[in-house]
Amino acid sequence: MTTTVFHPGWVLWMTGLSGAGKTTIALELDRQLRARGVRTERLDGDVVREGLTRDLGFTKEDREKNIDRVTFVAKLLSRNNVGVVCSFISPYKAMRDHVKKEVTNCIEVFIDAPLEVVESRDVKGWYKKARAGEVQNFTGINDPFEAPELPDIHVRTDQLSLEESVAKIISYLEVNHLIPTANA
Amino acid sequence: MTTTVFHPGWVLWMTGLSGAGKTTIALELDRQLRARGVRTERLDGDVVREGLTRDLGFTKEDREKNIDRVTFVAKLLSRNNVGVVCSFISPYKAMRDHVKKEVTNCIEVFIDAPLEVVESRDVKGWYKKARAGEVQNFTGINDPFEAPELPDIHVRTDQLSLEESVAKIISYLEVNHLIPTANA
Repeated sequence: MTTTVFHPGWVLWMTGLSGAGKTTIALELDRQLRARGVRTERLDGDVVREGLTRDLGFTKEDREKNIDRVTFVAKLLSRNNVGVVCSFISPYKAMRDHVKKEVTNCIEVFIDAPLEVVESRDVKGWYKKARAGEVQNFTGINDPFEAPELPDIHVRTDQLSLEESVAKIISYLEVNHLIPTANA
Repeated sequence: MTTTVFHPGWVLWMTGLSGAGKTTIALELDRQLRARGVRTERLDGDVVREGLTRDLGFTKEDREKNIDRVTFVAKLLSRNNVGVVCSFISPYKAMRDHVKKEVTNCIEVFIDAPLEVVESRDVKGWYKKARAGEVQNFTGINDPFEAPELPDIHVRTDQLSLEESVAKIISYLEVNHLIPTANA
């Protein structure tokens, strides 16, 4: 048995287009939070695909099932004082509203860059394929993205560096007493 | 920020035939553990069906997927100092070995009563239906149950009362320093 200072549970829900920077920010955020002793789990497509969502594709129905399962996990973790960093395109407002209703301390983070910017980055070549009609249900091209109107945190990755983006999120968590301050 | 005494994470994995008493024991165990401040989550078929496994049936393949998803959740919770009480028939040894490999501090609990006893209880009428051939893949009747050979805890529910069964499990957790003792 050990004694420790611990923090409330919460869920940082990062939504945004493919290529906006969700995973990059999540990885760096997770690293910095762990370095200061915050208990975090990172959930994104790659992490959950193996154990949780292997059977799912990208239709609206499958995206909903995906988010349902992730929500279930985030709910259990966040009510047990774990900070959960989720990064999913999660293009539909109704899905994100469902998450907010279910989990403890949900913080909606809009990882935002204009379509022309993320399309020009096209790290994995998906946008080109979607434009050519080789990929269906691709958010922003042939599937809708319902941008959050009032996200708790709005991160413009075409205007902020990775470091500034992460600092903005960490500052929000500190101000709202969801993590200990750096020198605590 | 609050300061608290906390305990390691662990997974109590209860395996056994339908009607052996897994859910009854899990509910009472969960109640007693919470009463002494242990952070627990209870996972069983009814709990996970809504958010996690709605699409699954009872074939061997579906049982495996079910256990895979539950294992994913139990892994994340147990490595964050949550005690997870799982009750699933989980009839195949290979499945249970997979769980043991994945989670933190796995304790295999065999909730055991002879088939004739659980069949005579037949609380939900399933055994009668399975004998009549109306239900397929029913463990113990027309599907195998591979009993654990060396469970960490062996609970004979035809010989112990509910209270004695729960006390046996709690005592194991105390002796192995997985929960604080009652007067800690």
